[in-house]
Amino acid sequence: MLEAVVFDAYGTLFDVHSVIAACEQMYPGRGALISQTWRQKQLEYTWLRALMRRYEDFETVNRDSLRFTLSKFELPYTRETIDRLANAYLGLAPYPDVLQALQAFQPNPLLILSNGTVPMLRTVVENAGLRAYFTDILSVDMLKTYKPDPRVYQLAVDRLGIPKANVLFVSSNGWDVAGAKSFGFTVGWINRTGSVTEELGVKPDYTVQSLLELAELISR
Amino acid sequence: MLEAVVFDAYGTLFDVHSVIAACEQMYPGRGALISQTWRQKQLEYTWLRALMRRYEDFETVNRDSLRFTLSKFELPYTRETIDRLANAYLGLAPYPDVLQALQAFQPNPLLILSNGTVPMLRTVVENAGLRAYFTDILSVDMLKTYKPDPRVYQLAVDRLGIPKANVLFVSSNGWDVAGAKSFGFTVGWINRTGSVTEELGVKPDYTVQSLLELAELISR
Repeated sequence: MLEAVVFDAYGTLFDVHSVIAACEQMYPGRGALISQTWRQKQLEYTWLRALMRRYEDFETVNRDSLRFTLSKFELPYTRETIDRLANAYLGLAPYPDVLQALQAFQPNPLLILSNGTVPMLRTVVENAGLRAYFTDILSVDMLKTYKPDPRVYQLAVDRLGIPKANVLFVSSNGWDVAGAKSFGFTVGWINRTGSVTEELGVKPDYTVQSLLELAELISR
Repeated sequence: MLEAVVFDAYGTLFDVHSVIAACEQMYPGRGALISQTWRQKQLEYTWLRALMRRYEDFETVNRDSLRFTLSKFELPYTRETIDRLANAYLGLAPYPDVLQALQAFQPNPLLILSNGTVPMLRTVVENAGLRAYFTDILSVDMLKTYKPDPRVYQLAVDRLGIPKANVLFVSSNGWDVAGAKSFGFTVGWINRTGSVTEELGVKPDYTVQSLLELAELISR
């Protein structure tokens, strides 16, 4: 019996690659490559910093991974460049079906549980006009670690006060799906691009191509 | 005052991409791509499993990441394929300067501290004819976690009984260099390919292009 829906933010509700345009404008012909490497490195740095016990918040990690990426491709940058591209994360576009899916997931309480800081998350949610849909926005920043540390998923359980298995956790990120399932959530994987399942010893309960498909599937 | 030298194994003493030939033989034209993706995924899985507190040893992670890689590229495989390619890790070639560098690092005690299991490490070291050079082979497997968890680096300190800063830790992996430096070792980064320094808040003490260059630098 599902009682609440907890969403990952980056890549799940918001398209991280909507920064390609901003990258492309500054570095013509390199937008997609920068965006892809930046995202990969950003994730690596969250995992590494959590393991190293050397936490810095997602705003810092996001800038650090961008600086690494631009250096790797020998692209010049200033502090202003970094600020401008990193700030693009505050205006990420939601995927086209987000609004309709959130409406379909109601009246369950809907929460966000993300690597982002609360100010970053509030801003991107408000810029997308989605503030009214979420009862809570939870951040790893409260714990100074990152997903998939199980203590992060426990944050949502503590806030909701319901059994883990009654929480539907929704993510498009295969490693986050594995972390949430390993923790004990019921998990829906939004596999928009036909990716292969991660070989981490657990499988999602639902695999769908869009948020709306999942909303319709569980409301049957 | 350096009193001991602790080496990472995979990528530092042994060339992980010496499996390209075995991959190429089974999947002509795809050897380099498979090897690169396999290695990246193998590292990701160590970080993720450590964070998820869902440890499986490196033999398992190595096979899991290989299976993911072959599935991703829609390449068919059998259990025998996986065994054959994974076993290539037992016969990885040492870099050309390893023998001469180890001789130059002596008479300091030389150790290996690696993500691999002790049996895997013993085998690759013996196959390369290097067993006589190492006083100890230490594995994350004793702790059921992975680098860069600081408890892993502490293993070497506990074994050696000397101050952290008197240990020279040697790795070619930028993230391992950051983890070891963050822990408190004196660190040498073998940057063979001119990679950019990771943006993880710490820098190695020495950056060189080869093991031999580092051995000569510190024995001056």
